[in-house]
Amino acid sequence: MELNEYKSVFLEYLSEEVVDNKGFSQPDNLYAPIHYILQLGGKRLRPVLTMMGCDIFSGNYKPALDAALAIEMFHNFTLMHDDIMDKASIRRGEITVHKKWDTNAGILSGDALMILAYQFFENYEGDTFKKIVALFNKTAIEVCEGQQFDIDFETSMDVSLEDYKKMIGYKTAVLVAASLKMGAIIGNASRREADLIYDFGFHLGMAFQLQDDYLDTFGTDDFGKKIGGDILENKKTFLVIKVLELASKEDRSEIEKLYVIKEGDKNKVEKVTSFFKKYHVDSFIQDEIQNYTKKALADCEKLEISEIHKTSLRSFANNLMKRKL
Amino acid sequence: MELNEYKSVFLEYLSEEVVDNKGFSQPDNLYAPIHYILQLGGKRLRPVLTMMGCDIFSGNYKPALDAALAIEMFHNFTLMHDDIMDKASIRRGEITVHKKWDTNAGILSGDALMILAYQFFENYEGDTFKKIVALFNKTAIEVCEGQQFDIDFETSMDVSLEDYKKMIGYKTAVLVAASLKMGAIIGNASRREADLIYDFGFHLGMAFQLQDDYLDTFGTDDFGKKIGGDILENKKTFLVIKVLELASKEDRSEIEKLYVIKEGDKNKVEKVTSFFKKYHVDSFIQDEIQNYTKKALADCEKLEISEIHKTSLRSFANNLMKRKL
Repeated sequence: MELNEYKSVFLEYLSEEVVDNKGFSQPDNLYAPIHYILQLGGKRLRPVLTMMGCDIFSGNYKPALDAALAIEMFHNFTLMHDDIMDKASIRRGEITVHKKWDTNAGILSGDALMILAYQFFENYEGDTFKKIVALFNKTAIEVCEGQQFDIDFETSMDVSLEDYKKMIGYKTAVLVAASLKMGAIIGNASRREADLIYDFGFHLGMAFQLQDDYLDTFGTDDFGKKIGGDILENKKTFLVIKVLELASKEDRSEIEKLYVIKEGDKNKVEKVTSFFKKYHVDSFIQDEIQNYTKKALADCEKLEISEIHKTSLRSFANNLMKRKL
Repeated sequence: MELNEYKSVFLEYLSEEVVDNKGFSQPDNLYAPIHYILQLGGKRLRPVLTMMGCDIFSGNYKPALDAALAIEMFHNFTLMHDDIMDKASIRRGEITVHKKWDTNAGILSGDALMILAYQFFENYEGDTFKKIVALFNKTAIEVCEGQQFDIDFETSMDVSLEDYKKMIGYKTAVLVAASLKMGAIIGNASRREADLIYDFGFHLGMAFQLQDDYLDTFGTDDFGKKIGGDILENKKTFLVIKVLELASKEDRSEIEKLYVIKEGDKNKVEKVTSFFKKYHVDSFIQDEIQNYTKKALADCEKLEISEIHKTSLRSFANNLMKRKL
């Protein structure tokens, strides 16, 4: 099945089970933000992976739909709460929940969204139920830990590349990995295969996040985000950590000054970007992205699945990494 | 077993499994607020009920300890987030998490606390695991809905007693009920018995919350809360809803004026309290408390358990309702 087909089947299921679900309507102030964020759009990357993971091992994506929905709900719960913490006004080109309603709505509707995610797992039985809830718990805690590291790093100038990779691993890659593995579990994959597809997802998630960091500075406008947002917010991404590692003492002190105050210098983005270029950190990050993509493709090779399925995993990976540079 | 014994066993287990758990330490900014709130004290009402529920049906409270911990963690997650939403500075006589750290810490540590609660259920197997997670999901969603109704009522003068009872039912009583039922499920109670003990807990929870409302206005200082807090915050409790129902047109308009602005009138608490007394709403609420307590005791009678166990449920109920007036 094509990626877009998974996505459109998923969107239809989302409509049936959530948007049109009378049970998710009252109190309106609790459920309206949930409907809003779930219909904001987005790539639907994670639920598609869950459906694909199941399809690959069982030849049927349908049993994975409830888990796919749960994963997407969880992901949107993290967005709702992260946007409050980051004071973000815009998400996917639209106003964020806590700005459209208020912070309390963002907190409480986010909480409800997470619980609803757990509720969708009730559609699985016995051993499968236990396995996917346990995987989900572990992943969800890691995502919280990743978010905390991200917050901590914002006010620290002493973040190593290792710290950074751990942070994006927890904040982003584990959920991509778990999305695939959950599908594999539902599709009755062996433990070895489920773990391998987790690794594939993890490495792909790392490549994806590093590419996100790259695009935030070096992307074009039609990527849909403000270019240089990470720099303005003093986010400790691969780029700035690497440049601080490589820069001369003088340049390093200059960069550190620029990273002290949020949006302090009018030409901050330009200045920081020119330091990135001076020390070729744009090439370094491209190498990292390549490395993780290769690791993912190597995991894929180890899977004992048909060539057709390997091709769809590969093309998924390649598609994901071919986003506008 | 005496109530205090359950409580001290629970506190010991909390220390072992959470306070001394090396896994719950890094990142510190995520876990420190969790340790803090879990050690703030409190009655530990809900976990004790879970242990008791299990003990009654199986003669052993120990299998219920993980569920008891999960329930207490969930309860503390709701407190952490509710305190942000209510802008509360003090909880159990100590500074609240979002004041001691910040709002982001309160949000994220609360999220992690909820997920950790789910993780403790992993210590149960098969059918029991599924049953308690499903009960927990249902209850947790109701608690969120109850909190939303509570927020909505704050800015509405059009709240009926029926609305109010639904709100406290969801916000408070269902968790008390589910705490007992979860213990009963773990203790292998029949479905009938598990449902009956749920009803007992629900009615007791209603009586408990109504008494809380009564004590907030008519309690003495050593109850540990500021007297009249609900009035100052324009909380739509039984008392004010009932007095608006009974008051003359003139008095009603006077009360409504007092409820427009938060802490607007210096003598607001005195003035509102005198209206409560004028229309005897203190007696009306006492009658309601009695009714719910009686209902709980009637549920208890229907249980097919030994007289000793009935006595302990009764004495639990009576103890709870004998709090300082």
